[in-house]
Amino acid sequence: MASPSSSTFDRLFNPKTIAVFGSVKKDKIGHQLVSQLTEGKFPGTIFAVNPKAESPEGFAAIPGFTNLTQAPSPPELALIAVPAQFVDSVIQSCGQGGVPFAVVFTSGFSEIGNSNEEAKLKETADRYGVRLIGPNCAGIMDTHAGMYSSIEVRALPGKTAFITQSGAVGGAVLALAKLRGIGFSKFVSYGNRADIGEVELLDYLESDPQTDVIALYLESLQNGREFMRAVSRVSRRKPVLIIKAGRSVSGLRAASSHTGSLAGSDEIFAAMIRQTGALRVPGMEEMLDLCDGLTSLPRLKGDRLAIVTNSGGPGILTSDRAEELGLSVKESPSGLRKELETFLPSYCAVANPIDLTVEGTREGYRRTLQAVLDSEYDGAIAINVATPFLDSTALAEGILEAASSQKEPKPLAAVFMAGEIVEEGIERLKRGGIPVFPTGERAAFVLSKMHEYTTRSVTAESAHDQAAGGELAPQSFPIEAPILEPEALSFLQEQGFPFPAHSYITDADQIPETLRNLGFPLVMKVVSPQILHKSDVGGVLLNLRDEQQVQQVFSDMARRFCSQGFQGVMLYRQVMEGLEIIAGIKQDPTFGPVVLVGAGGVLTELVRDSAVRIAPFGREEAEDMLSELKITTILAGYRGSTALDRKALADLLVRLSDLAVRYPAIQELDFNPIFLHQQGLLIGDVRIILAGQPIGSPPGNS
Amino acid sequence: MASPSSSTFDRLFNPKTIAVFGSVKKDKIGHQLVSQLTEGKFPGTIFAVNPKAESPEGFAAIPGFTNLTQAPSPPELALIAVPAQFVDSVIQSCGQGGVPFAVVFTSGFSEIGNSNEEAKLKETADRYGVRLIGPNCAGIMDTHAGMYSSIEVRALPGKTAFITQSGAVGGAVLALAKLRGIGFSKFVSYGNRADIGEVELLDYLESDPQTDVIALYLESLQNGREFMRAVSRVSRRKPVLIIKAGRSVSGLRAASSHTGSLAGSDEIFAAMIRQTGALRVPGMEEMLDLCDGLTSLPRLKGDRLAIVTNSGGPGILTSDRAEELGLSVKESPSGLRKELETFLPSYCAVANPIDLTVEGTREGYRRTLQAVLDSEYDGAIAINVATPFLDSTALAEGILEAASSQKEPKPLAAVFMAGEIVEEGIERLKRGGIPVFPTGERAAFVLSKMHEYTTRSVTAESAHDQAAGGELAPQSFPIEAPILEPEALSFLQEQGFPFPAHSYITDADQIPETLRNLGFPLVMKVVSPQILHKSDVGGVLLNLRDEQQVQQVFSDMARRFCSQGFQGVMLYRQVMEGLEIIAGIKQDPTFGPVVLVGAGGVLTELVRDSAVRIAPFGREEAEDMLSELKITTILAGYRGSTALDRKALADLLVRLSDLAVRYPAIQELDFNPIFLHQQGLLIGDVRIILAGQPIGSPPGNS
Repeated sequence: MASPSSSTFDRLFNPKTIAVFGSVKKDKIGHQLVSQLTEGKFPGTIFAVNPKAESPEGFAAIPGFTNLTQAPSPPELALIAVPAQFVDSVIQSCGQGGVPFAVVFTSGFSEIGNSNEEAKLKETADRYGVRLIGPNCAGIMDTHAGMYSSIEVRALPGKTAFITQSGAVGGAVLALAKLRGIGFSKFVSYGNRADIGEVELLDYLESDPQTDVIALYLESLQNGREFMRAVSRVSRRKPVLIIKAGRSVSGLRAASSHTGSLAGSDEIFAAMIRQTGALRVPGMEEMLDLCDGLTSLPRLKGDRLAIVTNSGGPGILTSDRAEELGLSVKESPSGLRKELETFLPSYCAVANPIDLTVEGTREGYRRTLQAVLDSEYDGAIAINVATPFLDSTALAEGILEAASSQKEPKPLAAVFMAGEIVEEGIERLKRGGIPVFPTGERAAFVLSKMHEYTTRSVTAESAHDQAAGGELAPQSFPIEAPILEPEALSFLQEQGFPFPAHSYITDADQIPETLRNLGFPLVMKVVSPQILHKSDVGGVLLNLRDEQQVQQVFSDMARRFCSQGFQGVMLYRQVMEGLEIIAGIKQDPTFGPVVLVGAGGVLTELVRDSAVRIAPFGREEAEDMLSELKITTILAGYRGSTALDRKALADLLVRLSDLAVRYPAIQELDFNPIFLHQQGLLIGDVRIILAGQPIGSPPGNS
Repeated sequence: MASPSSSTFDRLFNPKTIAVFGSVKKDKIGHQLVSQLTEGKFPGTIFAVNPKAESPEGFAAIPGFTNLTQAPSPPELALIAVPAQFVDSVIQSCGQGGVPFAVVFTSGFSEIGNSNEEAKLKETADRYGVRLIGPNCAGIMDTHAGMYSSIEVRALPGKTAFITQSGAVGGAVLALAKLRGIGFSKFVSYGNRADIGEVELLDYLESDPQTDVIALYLESLQNGREFMRAVSRVSRRKPVLIIKAGRSVSGLRAASSHTGSLAGSDEIFAAMIRQTGALRVPGMEEMLDLCDGLTSLPRLKGDRLAIVTNSGGPGILTSDRAEELGLSVKESPSGLRKELETFLPSYCAVANPIDLTVEGTREGYRRTLQAVLDSEYDGAIAINVATPFLDSTALAEGILEAASSQKEPKPLAAVFMAGEIVEEGIERLKRGGIPVFPTGERAAFVLSKMHEYTTRSVTAESAHDQAAGGELAPQSFPIEAPILEPEALSFLQEQGFPFPAHSYITDADQIPETLRNLGFPLVMKVVSPQILHKSDVGGVLLNLRDEQQVQQVFSDMARRFCSQGFQGVMLYRQVMEGLEIIAGIKQDPTFGPVVLVGAGGVLTELVRDSAVRIAPFGREEAEDMLSELKITTILAGYRGSTALDRKALADLLVRLSDLAVRYPAIQELDFNPIFLHQQGLLIGDVRIILAGQPIGSPPGNS
């Protein structure tokens, strides 16, 4: 696949000529596309291509040709809505005619299991140099170019580019947005994504001057790591919003069958969100609310929110939601209180929420919001709950006056409730650039996500740099399977992973000398390529306390396992204390190697306390993983006990991340338990599974 | 306060004559009320009372009088909007004139700290036999009586009664509801609740034939236990929905200042919800969605949900939300699959979500929904995501046909997305009695709450019976403070609480005989009314292992504490094992005595694992508390270990609940730790604080 420079998509979104392939009879997709383009006042040329060279019904001015060669000039964009069996030859004719882009609406490919047919389309497109959107898609729009090549509701103009894997979700979002007057710069429904997908579109939109915010609806990803790199980079310049469907068992089942591709684990998707600085939203309404806020408000720099209202109840509900979502609704500082008291009537509450009561006036809103936005608060929500006898438009004016008089702009969102009685006020606010949300709770959600963007896109930056640094070239794993414990240990020790003092004993004579170095108590484990589950066969013994015991157990093991490939034993100094931690590496089908950490020992299953990140990552991200754990309180020194060596644990995670990237053959690696101490840590046991290694043949004591 | 029979509120909601007290000049509340009544076509008589006997501006037909005595007949309802200082005398004149009900709109009472003035209103009303709504309220409506005595948007008729502590929230809900065509039977904004509050209104609405669902917006409660009893009883007949504001710190602060009353702990409010079978909703949009569902759909009997859609993406998002909310979106059973495959095209997904694709027809929806509702599913959501070229009205007909052909009705909700293109379809569905939600996620929320109603209102029934059983007459606590440990123990033992073997030793001579009964190891604690924190002064010693040690420690304590009121020591057999649990009693300012249980020992702070219930409660509720705990997995036999005595722990909770109700003087009681065994349990330490007892003087070893 050619990796096009971003400018190559300009003709996709702003073509001079469009050809519509397929029937243009009424009710057919070809006809719907012509209607949409015409009603949307497409400024370029349109023609139709179909066997009878028909013009679209009711559009006599639009010419029809039997094939491209008859057309006066080649189109820059082909819209293909012919039956599935003809798509391939139409793409071929497009390629021969020099058409650079084609959008394939036709369904009946990988989404119903016909993956071979879809692969063939892609081969043909590649061979003839045509770039594809689709098949099985709902088309594309560019509101600034007046280009509506889609069967969905025509979007209003705006600053959000919306990319969707599901055409129907796209249509629903556009229709909901239209109801609320929210617009888009571009719309892409890419359907089965045989060619152009979210990664290339993100690359292009990063520098699209008409796009301030990028919103995505995803069910699965084509290349998780490429996607992650793109989102990480783009998020630094523009917020990237994502709805990821398929969080539940039934949702995953449907997503896999719906898109014909494997949907990945939601937990790891959530890690990707954290690491890239993207913003996840649960559904369409939240997405629209957030697009509205992000495209119309300045950045929210901190978490301190003020709420100015003319009614207590809705102020409280807003406050509740804002705090639940991590914003701070602190009491007004005394300076602000004093200032408010100079002009507000005494029955007003000045604490925050600031309640102007139903008597609140235009002047009251203006002066209060000005004072609030001049104070230490980072943003504000202005709420008006009207009665039929209240002049909401005047209040809107007061809010607009406060917004426009700001020296250093801070986000100010409005909530006007509800219906006819506030319609004019809402209209006035929107014209003045203030977003208006249906409830205070939804405004609070938007500001909390804006705050998340501010904080996470900074962290993500370093994650991206880490990923981009790329010093970690993949290597083949230096030991062949089956890996014996002594080999695994010496390899991991070289990589800087700390283990208790240990020794590999192949002969009883080595014991006295070894014991002088190790001390007591000791753990002995049998070493043999044939013994997979050592514990099950009595191949692990704990609490050995003197030389005599060690000698006896050694000779006993040598005797018992002599016919099972006995090569010797590992002797470990037994670790008696420390907080038990589990950490390891796994492979995710979408994102590749990931690193996990969690509470070990008795807490493992009880509190289900774990965090995951996609490798590679750095110290900062490792620290963030630890902060996510419930046992983070224990690490910090729980109930007056001394703090544990959090730094050593974070180092171990970074080291695991490096190991995972350097040795892609590691399918699974577990350190369980790790004993974390006030100073340092020790790894109590290891399990490694390599790619291609039969399951159930890990080294270790399990 | 007289406890009226429910029929006494009939005249409040359906008065023949209404008098409006206060200025009726344009823009004044009196004038607004007259406008609302007139525009709402109030069928009775209206007159105004004001100093100049003025008719309302623009309403010449409505007479004005200077006082009630001039009126031809006394009104059944007085609407009072005079300045605060005149409210009391107006209430008096109403009483003298035989007016049974008054709604006081005037503000300036307890909400700004003037609680004495408010108490005086109540006294006057009681003295003259007038029942009050308000002060500081937004009025009342009865849509069936055509009575709109409120300054808020006039409600459409419907089957939900809405009671709100905040007039503004009331107004906002009514306006949002109107936008969506959702109606109400009655509306009450009771403001400061000087007289009539939520409890009496619940009692009345329980048997109101026009009300199927009761919705409440609350910031605080007047009498938590009365409220709980009322909700428990009413929930059995009609769903009771509650928005409780003030969940967050800032929200609580605002709620307390806003209503002038103490808002209680949200955790205990949540327990009340569980125990009564009420349904909690986070905000206004969720409340309206749920009212719409509950008033138009049959009960949801189980958790099995089917989703029928014409677009994959929105189906998946709905499925995700439904499972997150505890519904089951299981794969279609094979019988159903086979049936669907007989008439659906092969490209449709029949697994659930069932995806008819964009080609889905009226016939397809009808037959699919009929098959689904005839199968084992308990309810269904039908989703249509339209394009401008799709006939949504035909799909609506298909859905209606399926709904109306059901033998045994199951809930069927619809989602039609979005905007103009589906308006007619939505209209058609609503007229046919099918509720339509803006997104599938919101429909899933409604069905999950309907399922909660089905399951919880059954459990709540027994809770109510338990509370109603009321065999537990309050008694005075039999021991006076300061309570010494031997007294506390023998009292609690009599109540059936199990302690380790122990003995009270006042003289060294008692030791040998005592040790023969107790065994070893032992714990010794000093007994003295002057020693509060025994551990701090070396008054607790563990691990005593022989008689010599016991004798020595006893003589040592006797010597060390002889000048501090030494009366002897308690000797306990030391408990060496068992899962550590904490349980106890606390007093909640709103709901009275509550019982808590949680993980003890090292888990206490780490996992913050606790459950709370309002006393009294029975076995079933105690079991439910234990199910709520994270350590419920440990109780059941964690990681192959034997199960612990869950029954003994549940018994202890019920016993604590009885104790709490029987002895209201117990301000706080802690058993910490309790050692839970495979058979039975033992209480390791006790702390009791009685009402009036100085804080910091509990018995026990802390």
